[in-house]
Amino acid sequence: MLDGKRIGFGITASHCTYADVIPKIKAFTDRGATVVPVITNSVLTAATRFGTGEEWMEKIREAAGADIITTIAGAEPFGPKTPVDCMVIAPMTGNSISRFANAITDSPVLMAAKATLRNGTPVVIGISTNDALGLNGTNIMKLLNTKNIYCIPFGQDDPVKKPNSLISDFTKMVDTVEAAMRGEQLQPLLIRHENT
Amino acid sequence: MLDGKRIGFGITASHCTYADVIPKIKAFTDRGATVVPVITNSVLTAATRFGTGEEWMEKIREAAGADIITTIAGAEPFGPKTPVDCMVIAPMTGNSISRFANAITDSPVLMAAKATLRNGTPVVIGISTNDALGLNGTNIMKLLNTKNIYCIPFGQDDPVKKPNSLISDFTKMVDTVEAAMRGEQLQPLLIRHENT
Amino acid sequence: MLDGKRIGFGITASHCTYADVIPKIKAFTDRGATVVPVITNSVLTAATRFGTGEEWMEKIREAAGADIITTIAGAEPFGPKTPVDCMVIAPMTGNSISRFANAITDSPVLMAAKATLRNGTPVVIGISTNDALGLNGTNIMKLLNTKNIYCIPFGQDDPVKKPNSLISDFTKMVDTVEAAMRGEQLQPLLIRHENT
Amino acid sequence: MLDGKRIGFGITASHCTYADVIPKIKAFTDRGATVVPVITNSVLTAATRFGTGEEWMEKIREAAGADIITTIAGAEPFGPKTPVDCMVIAPMTGNSISRFANAITDSPVLMAAKATLRNGTPVVIGISTNDALGLNGTNIMKLLNTKNIYCIPFGQDDPVKKPNSLISDFTKMVDTVEAAMRGEQLQPLLIRHENT
Amino acid sequence: MLDGKRIGFGITASHCTYADVIPKIKAFTDRGATVVPVITNSVLTAATRFGTGEEWMEKIREAAGADIITTIAGAEPFGPKTPVDCMVIAPMTGNSISRFANAITDSPVLMAAKATLRNGTPVVIGISTNDALGLNGTNIMKLLNTKNIYCIPFGQDDPVKKPNSLISDFTKMVDTVEAAMRGEQLQPLLIRHENT
Amino acid sequence: MLDGKRIGFGITASHCTYADVIPKIKAFTDRGATVVPVITNSVLTAATRFGTGEEWMEKIREAAGADIITTIAGAEPFGPKTPVDCMVIAPMTGNSISRFANAITDSPVLMAAKATLRNGTPVVIGISTNDALGLNGTNIMKLLNTKNIYCIPFGQDDPVKKPNSLISDFTKMVDTVEAAMRGEQLQPLLIRHENT
Repeated sequence: MLDGKRIGFGITASHCTYADVIPKIKAFTDRGATVVPVITNSVLTAATRFGTGEEWMEKIREAAGADIITTIAGAEPFGPKTPVDCMVIAPMTGNSISRFANAITDSPVLMAAKATLRNGTPVVIGISTNDALGLNGTNIMKLLNTKNIYCIPFGQDDPVKKPNSLISDFTKMVDTVEAAMRGEQLQPLLIRHENT
Repeated sequence: MLDGKRIGFGITASHCTYADVIPKIKAFTDRGATVVPVITNSVLTAATRFGTGEEWMEKIREAAGADIITTIAGAEPFGPKTPVDCMVIAPMTGNSISRFANAITDSPVLMAAKATLRNGTPVVIGISTNDALGLNGTNIMKLLNTKNIYCIPFGQDDPVKKPNSLISDFTKMVDTVEAAMRGEQLQPLLIRHENT
Repeated sequence: MLDGKRIGFGITASHCTYADVIPKIKAFTDRGATVVPVITNSVLTAATRFGTGEEWMEKIREAAGADIITTIAGAEPFGPKTPVDCMVIAPMTGNSISRFANAITDSPVLMAAKATLRNGTPVVIGISTNDALGLNGTNIMKLLNTKNIYCIPFGQDDPVKKPNSLISDFTKMVDTVEAAMRGEQLQPLLIRHENT
Repeated sequence: MLDGKRIGFGITASHCTYADVIPKIKAFTDRGATVVPVITNSVLTAATRFGTGEEWMEKIREAAGADIITTIAGAEPFGPKTPVDCMVIAPMTGNSISRFANAITDSPVLMAAKATLRNGTPVVIGISTNDALGLNGTNIMKLLNTKNIYCIPFGQDDPVKKPNSLISDFTKMVDTVEAAMRGEQLQPLLIRHENT
Repeated sequence: MLDGKRIGFGITASHCTYADVIPKIKAFTDRGATVVPVITNSVLTAATRFGTGEEWMEKIREAAGADIITTIAGAEPFGPKTPVDCMVIAPMTGNSISRFANAITDSPVLMAAKATLRNGTPVVIGISTNDALGLNGTNIMKLLNTKNIYCIPFGQDDPVKKPNSLISDFTKMVDTVEAAMRGEQLQPLLIRHENT
Repeated sequence: MLDGKRIGFGITASHCTYADVIPKIKAFTDRGATVVPVITNSVLTAATRFGTGEEWMEKIREAAGADIITTIAGAEPFGPKTPVDCMVIAPMTGNSISRFANAITDSPVLMAAKATLRNGTPVVIGISTNDALGLNGTNIMKLLNTKNIYCIPFGQDDPVKKPNSLISDFTKMVDTVEAAMRGEQLQPLLIRHENT
C-alpha cells in the first residue's frame, strides 16, 4: 500500500522520543515510499542531553534519504504543487498539538499539515506531551474528530509521576498511516504502555 | 474514610449498565456511609429490555436504603442545607455529560451536581457513552480538568464495533471517591477493559 | 428614551430573586414603555418557599399590565411580526445562560431572545447563578462579547459560601437597557454588592 | 447508488420548510431506497399556520411509505441492530444543530444521529435557522469538520431582514447524500439562493 | 464619511492577494482619509514568486503615503494615544485569524487590532485562507459575532481544488468599512466569486 | 507557610505594572522562600517609557536574589528535576493568558507553568490585560476553573476608558499563593480598584 507513495514526515521538539521515532522513518522507505522530512525550528536550535540539533538533523536526513524542509515557504508546495499522500507528525509536542487544533500555522510542520488538509489528504499525528489529559485535552479530542486527521494509538506513560501525560506507541506508526489512507482510525486507540 | 459520610448518588439513563452499577451502591453503605440516590426522569420512564423503570427504582431504593430524589427542587438542598461529602454520578450518559460540561442544569442529577460544586465538594463521574471519543470528547476533557470533578477510570469497551465508546470500570468507584475526597484523581485513568 | 418603546421581559426560574426583580418591571411602564412578559415553564410549575407559580404569574401580569407569553410559538412573533425594541431577561438562571450561549432555543424566553437577535435588536441579561465563575464562566464571557447582548452589572453575592456565584444588581436594569439601546454596555460592569 | 439502501430521515421543527422538504423524501424511495422517518416531539405538538402536527405526520408517512419513529427508545436500534446506510436530518433547526454539535442527545432525531455516528456511517444535515451566522455559527462549523458529518449546501435566504439566517438548498439533498456515502462533501458548499 | 478619518491598515502574509489588495489602500486616501499601515514580520521576510518583502513594502508606503509600523511597540499607541477610527486587516491569513480569535497578540497587526478594540472602535477583516471552512471555521464564526468586528464579504474561491478556502471580495473593502463605522455588517456576507 | 519553599516567579511583558509587581518579589524571600525568576523574551527586548529590558532584568535579579531563567530549555527542569512549590506569573499579559489557556507552550514562563502543572503543583496568575472582558474572557474563565490554577483577585482598572480591562491587585499576591498552596482560591475574587 505504501509502495510509490509520498509521505511527509514532520518532527517537532520532543527530543526524548527521537531515539524511538526517527529510526522508524526507514519503515516507510523500506516499503517503497518516498519520505519528505519537515522540522520545526526548535528541533534544530535546541541542544539537549539527547543530542544537538545538528546530530538529529543528520540522522533524519539519513533515515529519510532526503533533504529536510526547514522553512514555512518550503512547506507550502505540499498544497497545490507537490502534494503528499499522507502527512505524519511524530513526535508531536503539546505546543504543536494546540496550534494545529486552533488553526495556527507558524511552523514548517504546521504549514505542511495545513497544506495536506487543503487537499483532503490524511494527516496522522503521534502525540507526546505531559498535558494531554490536562489543558491540551480538548485540543486532542478536537483533532481526533476532525476530518482527515488520525492518531497513532496512545496511552499514559507514567500515570503516577505524570498523570496527564500521553504518548503514542510509535511502533504502530505504519499501521496507522495505512489505515488512515483507507479513511480509517487504527483501533484500539487507547493503549496501555508496557511499563505502566 | 467513608464512615459517617453522606454520599449523593446520581443515576442517569444508561440502562445496560444498571446490573453492574446499582449493586455497588451497597459498597458505600457497607463502609458506613449514608447514600442519597437521585435519578433523571428517563430512568423512571424508559422501559427497556433490561427492565422497567419501577423495577430499577425498587432496586435503587433497596441498595441505598433511602428514598430517591426525583425532582430538581428536591436536589437543590444539596447546596446550602443538606450538603453531601461527595456526589457520584454513575452511570453517566453522554447526554448528561454534555449538559454538565456546558453548565446546563435541567435534571435532578445535574442540579445535585451543581449544588455540590457550589460548596467546593467533589463530584465523581462514571461515564458510559458511545460518543466519548466522538462529539462528546471535548466535554469529557473539560470536566476532567475542572476543579472538584474526578472520573472513575475508563477505557474502550468495544474498539471494533463502537470505536468511540468509553465506559468506566465501576469496580473502581469506591477507590475513586476516596481519592477525590483527598483531592486526587485515581490513577491510571485510562484502563483497558478485559474483553478488549 | 423608553417612552413608546416595546420591551420584552423574560423571566426564568430563579425564584429567590423575584421579590427584587418583578417590581422593577413597573419602572419600564412608568417611563411610558409597553412591557411584554415571557416566562419559562419552570416559573409556573415550581412551587418554592418563595411562593407558588400562580402567585408569581399574577404579580408579573400586574406589574406588566399585560398577558404573559408562556409558549415557544407565542414568542416567535418577536422576530418578524411584533418585534420589541429591547429584550430583557432577568433573572436569568445558569440553566438559561448556558442554553442561550450555546444557541439552544427550547423555552419561550430563549425563543424571544433569538427572535430579537434575528432583528439586530439588543438583548439585556441580568444573571443570577452560583456557577457563574465556575462551569458557566465561559458562557457568560461568550455572551458578553456577542453583538447586541449586554449585561446588567454583576458581582459576587457571597464570596465565602458561594465563591462562584454572581448576581446582577437589578436596580441598574433600566440604565442598562437605555445604554444597550444606544449600543453601549453600562459601566462599571463588575460591581461589589453591599453586603460583601 | 441508493438502490437497496436504508436511509434514516430525521425531521425537526422548522415548519416553514416542510412544504419544500417533505415531498423530497420520495426522491429516495423513487431511487429504490427504504426510508425510515424520525421526528422530534415538537413536529407533532406544534400547530402553526403551516398546518397541524397530525397533518404533517400523515404527509411524512405517505412520502416515506413507513411508520414514523417518535421516541428515543425507538431510535436507539439505529446503532447496533437495524443500522441505516445514511441518516439525513432536514430541516434541521438551530435548536437541534446546537444540541447535536454539543453531544446532547435528547430527541429521537438526535439519538438516531448519534447511533449512526457510532457505526461510522454518514449523517447529512440540511440546516434552516436564523442564527446560523450568529450564536450557532461555531456549532455549524464544528459539525462541518466532524468525521462522517456532511451538509446540504446552504446560503443566506434573506441577507437584509435576517442577516444571520442560512438555509440549505433542499433540491441538493439526494446529491449530498450520494456524495456523503462516498465520503465526500458536495461542492460548492456555500450557495446563493435565487431570490437574494 | 471617510473624510478626515484615520484608518489603520494591517497587512499579513498572504502574498498571492497583494496585487489585488494593496492598490485599494488608495481608495481610502482618495476619500480624504489618512492611512496608517501596519505589517506582520512575515510580510517583510518572505520572498515569494509574487515579489520580495522590500518590493511590497515600497508599494504599501506609496499607496498609503505614510511610513509602515513594523513593531509591536509601534502599534500600541493605537490604544490610548493615537487611536484610529477603524482598523482594517486585509488580507488576513488563517494564521492571524486564529490568533486574533483566541486573543493572542504577538504581531504588530494583532496589537493594533487589540488596541482598537480596547477603544470600542471597529475592526474590519478581509480573510484569505484555505482552512476557513476547516479548522479555522470556528475562529471566523467567533470573530463574526464579536462586538466591533466586521467582515469583508467572502466566498469560496475554488470549491473543487480548495473546498475549505474562503476569500473576501476586496472590492467591497470601503463599503464594509463605512458600514462598520455605522455599527453595521455589510450584506450579503456570503458571496459567490465570479469564477466559481 | 512560605518558609523553605521554592517559588517560581514568571514575568511577562506588561511593563506598566513592573514598578508595582517587581518589588513584591521580595515579600517571598522575606518570608524565607527561595524565588526562581523566569521571563519571556519580550521582557528583555522591549524598551518602553517604563525602562529598558536590562534595567528591569537587574531589578528582578536583585529582588529575587537569583539568576533569571530566560530560555525554554532552562524552564523544563521545573518538571521532574527541580520542581517548585508554587509558580506565580505576574504580571501575566493577555498574550500569555491566551497561550496558557490553549496549551501553547512557547516561552520560558509558559514552559515553567506547564512543568509545574505536570507535577500537580499550583500555578497562581496575576492578570493585566485590556481584553480581559473581551476576546480573552473565555480564556480567563477556563483557567480559573482548571485544576491547580488560581488567580490573584482582579477588577476593572478603568471602566470608562478601557471597559474590558482587568488587573490583579498585586498586594494580594502572597495571600493568593498561600491559599493556593492549601488548594483554595483567595476570596473575594472580584475586587474594585480604589481609583474606580
